[in-house]
Amino acid sequence: MSAGRMPTRDGVRAAADAVGAILPPTPLLPVEIGDVTCHVKAESLQPIGAFKIRGGWWRLSSMDDAERERGVVAVSSGNHAQGVAWAARRLGIAATIVMPRNAPAAKLEATRALGAEVVLYERPGEDRDEVAARLVAERGSVLVHAFGDPWVIEGQGSAGVEIARQLGRQPSRIVACCGGGGLAAGLALACPDSAIVPVEPVGWDMVGQSLTKGQIVRVADDPPTTICDALQPDATKPINLAVLSGRAEPGVTVTDAEVRAAQRFAFARLQLVVEPGGAAALAAALAGKVPLDEDTVIMVTGGNVDPAAFARTITTDD
Amino acid sequence: MSAGRMPTRDGVRAAADAVGAILPPTPLLPVEIGDVTCHVKAESLQPIGAFKIRGGWWRLSSMDDAERERGVVAVSSGNHAQGVAWAARRLGIAATIVMPRNAPAAKLEATRALGAEVVLYERPGEDRDEVAARLVAERGSVLVHAFGDPWVIEGQGSAGVEIARQLGRQPSRIVACCGGGGLAAGLALACPDSAIVPVEPVGWDMVGQSLTKGQIVRVADDPPTTICDALQPDATKPINLAVLSGRAEPGVTVTDAEVRAAQRFAFARLQLVVEPGGAAALAAALAGKVPLDEDTVIMVTGGNVDPAAFARTITTDD
Repeated sequence: MSAGRMPTRDGVRAAADAVGAILPPTPLLPVEIGDVTCHVKAESLQPIGAFKIRGGWWRLSSMDDAERERGVVAVSSGNHAQGVAWAARRLGIAATIVMPRNAPAAKLEATRALGAEVVLYERPGEDRDEVAARLVAERGSVLVHAFGDPWVIEGQGSAGVEIARQLGRQPSRIVACCGGGGLAAGLALACPDSAIVPVEPVGWDMVGQSLTKGQIVRVADDPPTTICDALQPDATKPINLAVLSGRAEPGVTVTDAEVRAAQRFAFARLQLVVEPGGAAALAAALAGKVPLDEDTVIMVTGGNVDPAAFARTITTDD
Repeated sequence: MSAGRMPTRDGVRAAADAVGAILPPTPLLPVEIGDVTCHVKAESLQPIGAFKIRGGWWRLSSMDDAERERGVVAVSSGNHAQGVAWAARRLGIAATIVMPRNAPAAKLEATRALGAEVVLYERPGEDRDEVAARLVAERGSVLVHAFGDPWVIEGQGSAGVEIARQLGRQPSRIVACCGGGGLAAGLALACPDSAIVPVEPVGWDMVGQSLTKGQIVRVADDPPTTICDALQPDATKPINLAVLSGRAEPGVTVTDAEVRAAQRFAFARLQLVVEPGGAAALAAALAGKVPLDEDTVIMVTGGNVDPAAFARTITTDD
């Protein structure tokens, strides 16, 4: 973890400068939902196909030479993996990524193609954090946590700085898919005047439940399945809960069917390839689960999906 | 047609102002092809899923009240249809669109959903220009040609103004899919220092052949089939040939297999839904048919494709 530093709004702004220096802003696309035209922030169009490139770049580019030499270890179902691997390749840092054996093949291949070493674990069964801790201990590497890290949170928040710039003001509301809460926390810091609505898969609302109870709630021993492979954290982290407490509106969850409907909408109406987890916020919006106005921004966060799964989704209507 | 007015660079700039006032710029995305990082202009992310919204908006918004009252007629396989219908709805103008009966269902439905009246014709068999001329004569409407119109050419050229702004300079080369040559002509006017490379389906290179011969060449009586439904003009028009003569580099054609490979690349690497015709320029780039450098821009022009056809393309490798 991160020696206790808390992420800040100034940190988010610095992250936005660093990210903006190497990556063009992703588009804020108008989208008609019912009779409201609101906005989609298409983070699926980042070079790695997901917003995670932001946190990866800000974390790794903030490391000093000694840290860079030790290399980095990350744990990820695929998008953080690619974000860290992309930044590591560009900075000449060795990267080892702990990934679930059942991650989408597209994500495993893309991570290896970026030059990272991939170490597989069994999901469920093995504790991925233990696998990572063992690697960190063996190699002396720096752990880059997927969401419980102040730089990662600030990096993800850089999307909020871009949104406010593109919109000309802070949004009334930002609807964001939520795994461990790194993106939601970053957006909360970036846009203090905006309502933050995290959207989680049914049964995997570990941020929502933690916000409601005021303490970290772990996922059930036998959680339901979800097609949102990117949104399955065992639990959020104290740093995320601290930032989001009193700021985020808990309680919005989506079903697999709602997510698939959102993927079809994105395909047919936005011409975007969106993975299940990346479509969660749009799913909540389309299902009428969040209020929408013309200053609402819906985060579409990733588009790394296996072709066969995507083909099935767009050719069926369940 | 258009009473002989020729499109101009000033007209393109005015079109860019008009388009920019209602539509955010589409992103210029970095793309790695081999060891070169060049750029994709993602016009498939326009609200109607194609660049044709530009020409439609500039043509219709330039009409005076008397013209607007008479309504408009357009001929289109689908994207120009939606561009005209979108502009007409927004301006309160009645629109009638002549479309081939075998146009993709997605395009037919979307055009009707925008409030336009759709009149179908048989392709091949009926002459679509005759069908449109009859409607214009009957109703006194204004014909908005899909490419042989100075406003339409200027409107499409507004994409080039955006590109130069986003890149900070004119590209070395713009690779653009080409049907009748409206987009290519607009880009040639917008970016006089850029090489313009039109890309056409094999057997449908009516612009390329016309440029080579210095006169308009009509498509063969029995042309080959192509999956690029948006790139099947019978012939280019004098206004397009006049603008492109001496400016565009003819000779680049792509096969259906190359186009499908480009659609798969766009799906997996750019997270973009791209229709066959919209992928033609990318297909030429991936097939090594045009030189690439870091100032090269590849137009990805449309993403309106039927789900079943797209699903087949991404799950096979032919």
